Amino acid sequence: MNAELITIGDEILIGQIVDTNSAWIAQKLNMIGVKVQKIISTSDDEQSILNVINDSLSSSEIVIITGGLGPTNDDVTKRALLSYYGGNLVVDESTLKQIESFFKKRGLPLTELNRKQAEVPDSCLVLPNMKGTAPGMWFERDSKILISLPGVPFEMESLMEESVLPKLKLLSSNIIIHQTIQTFGLPESFLAEKLFDWENSIPKNIKLAYLPSPNSIRLRISAYGNSEKNLNDQITILVKSLQNIIPKYIFGYGEVSMQEVVGLMLKKISATISIAESCTGGNISHLITLVPGSSSYFRGGLVAYSNNIKIDYLKVDKELIAEFGAVSRRVVEQMAKGIKDLLKTDYAIAISGIAGPDGGTENKPIGTVWISVISNKNLITKEFRFGNDRQINITRSSVTALNMLRLLLLEEHPYLAENIFS
Amino acid sequence: MNAELITIGDEILIGQIVDTNSAWIAQKLNMIGVKVQKIISTSDDEQSILNVINDSLSSSEIVIITGGLGPTNDDVTKRALLSYYGGNLVVDESTLKQIESFFKKRGLPLTELNRKQAEVPDSCLVLPNMKGTAPGMWFERDSKILISLPGVPFEMESLMEESVLPKLKLLSSNIIIHQTIQTFGLPESFLAEKLFDWENSIPKNIKLAYLPSPNSIRLRISAYGNSEKNLNDQITILVKSLQNIIPKYIFGYGEVSMQEVVGLMLKKISATISIAESCTGGNISHLITLVPGSSSYFRGGLVAYSNNIKIDYLKVDKELIAEFGAVSRRVVEQMAKGIKDLLKTDYAIAISGIAGPDGGTENKPIGTVWISVISNKNLITKEFRFGNDRQINITRSSVTALNMLRLLLLEEHPYLAENIFS
Repeated sequence: MNAELITIGDEILIGQIVDTNSAWIAQKLNMIGVKVQKIISTSDDEQSILNVINDSLSSSEIVIITGGLGPTNDDVTKRALLSYYGGNLVVDESTLKQIESFFKKRGLPLTELNRKQAEVPDSCLVLPNMKGTAPGMWFERDSKILISLPGVPFEMESLMEESVLPKLKLLSSNIIIHQTIQTFGLPESFLAEKLFDWENSIPKNIKLAYLPSPNSIRLRISAYGNSEKNLNDQITILVKSLQNIIPKYIFGYGEVSMQEVVGLMLKKISATISIAESCTGGNISHLITLVPGSSSYFRGGLVAYSNNIKIDYLKVDKELIAEFGAVSRRVVEQMAKGIKDLLKTDYAIAISGIAGPDGGTENKPIGTVWISVISNKNLITKEFRFGNDRQINITRSSVTALNMLRLLLLEEHPYLAENIFS
Repeated sequence: MNAELITIGDEILIGQIVDTNSAWIAQKLNMIGVKVQKIISTSDDEQSILNVINDSLSSSEIVIITGGLGPTNDDVTKRALLSYYGGNLVVDESTLKQIESFFKKRGLPLTELNRKQAEVPDSCLVLPNMKGTAPGMWFERDSKILISLPGVPFEMESLMEESVLPKLKLLSSNIIIHQTIQTFGLPESFLAEKLFDWENSIPKNIKLAYLPSPNSIRLRISAYGNSEKNLNDQITILVKSLQNIIPKYIFGYGEVSMQEVVGLMLKKISATISIAESCTGGNISHLITLVPGSSSYFRGGLVAYSNNIKIDYLKVDKELIAEFGAVSRRVVEQMAKGIKDLLKTDYAIAISGIAGPDGGTENKPIGTVWISVISNKNLITKEFRFGNDRQINITRSSVTALNMLRLLLLEEHPYLAENIFS
């Protein structure tokens, strides 16, 4: 099956926001065997929307539209769909209830504009939006499907996962099985070199893609065929051989994050962790606490942005800072010991670096970062050189620190390698 | 003048990369009065490219294509353009020289594939690419312009700045001026109701859009005309009247973030800040330290995830936690005082809540969050009810806390309202 994606909103056409919804949807469709032929962004204007819908439905079986469903006047998707599919606007009672409870929970009165969001063309099937107020709509005519979704990413994603993908999956006959392997620590070109022979051994019905991001390089294996069992067997063999080539660089499978993996490990061994951050400014604690249930292993963290805090609470020697600077092996090691003692945890991470854009010197350029991980038995410290961009430095060093903790946990508890994902 | 943007590449259609080129180009075109009507991503396939070019040139005066010019076989834009505009492929001598020197500089041999990149249709004007090997191409026919650019962002950007924008500027007479106003604290529908009369008073040549995100609702005013001065005057008047209607909800102008605004304020009054976080797990400190130069006002933060840390370091009374729970007015107020004393700052924020997905009770459902902001003179505490989603709760409560600090700063230093953006 072929699909076209339409995003609606002048904010995209003037370049104020980047359309990230389309890439997300395209990835998900791809995984269930639906091929995206075209992605179109058009204006908040009824006639433009109608023209694009017409074009897309003439060349594709599935059209997914995001955006243009908000309560304010500049949102016209619903009017365009009503004019295309006919019918009348009616109040969808379950949507109205959802909107009412949404506002009640927040202690806000329901306005007329919000009530209007419960109105839908009676020519569509309503897809409930559990994360917001604008429902999704599913239209069918002449064996073509059009799906309208809100443009707010987390609402769109939830509607896709809960309603749209399961329904589309039933219509698709090819089987595609994907397996994502998360790696960290090897740049893309080095990874590709290491995997050169392995890549050449991959059967023809299987495709490999490298998906780099600041948090990981994902390897996506996609197997095409018509027997689920055969495809799964093929993938299992490929993943096994991959594990032999880059055992330490693989940190997880599927859409798992580094902080989730580390969290699973800490839970498995009933250990606790604390964090002392300088250059990452709280981001490592933030990543760890994004994981539901992290309170069972995360005790707390100290963002020691000023040297006084390092000295007063982490018991870093004043003289060491004076001699080696706050961004140094000796200081970051004392920070790690300091936070571990202060918050009485089994493990701790400490980090100190120069995130930029200022503060670099010839010996310690912007992007210099020292990281320590500590346990009751070990203290491991490393220096890194990241780039010039403050935000990327913060992200890269946070994930790098979590990865160092992962490797230490693996070393001290080798059975975690086998048991962590089961 | 109207334009359409076409990006070429299967990697966009399978969602492997997000098309950021289009937003960049759209912004630049917008500033010289060229309105982007549509953005299209299509496949690396000659016929698909030809179809899209045909459509776009029939409805717009300018078409800009990015991508599909690399040396490998899946890049077919040049073939499609040759077939559309006719002519022959000829070697462009200055491009060949540029490619040769490009490879020489890097100590790499010149391959046949790269030499081929110097071949261009003789029906186009060549735009030199100083940053890479694929030149830009400018075609004109029937008063329509088509520009083909490489897809690598920094090459495309350099070609746009050096060649394309200066040439297009000479052809454009319209002027569009945008002003974005950042608001926080009023949901979209409430904002729309408050602004109902004001919206109706907006002149016809000016458009308004609401752009909601978890961090703010941006209002974008776009003024169309031919006198820059008149448009600027119109916008100034509109913004003034808006400031009178929602003075407290506007926190900034343009693409500024809440943490940047709060940072500017603290800098202006030379004050320092510290943070005690429970449910946000370090995210407020992280947001503050994303801002370059934040070390001049941010002293540090404590992520007090466990009650013991609240008791030991923030001096919260054990009995208060037992009686009212950690998510309560009394506890969060003690946390605010505690962190302010601990890190000796002028201001402090404390936050305690239930981020979810577990931990809610009937009286304190998931999404219940208490926030305190404290100064040497004031202590302000509020309770909020956000939703059920952990990540959204963390984001919303972080920005809400920063906004409470902003309002306190404004109250104590009213002149900041006037001086912060000048």
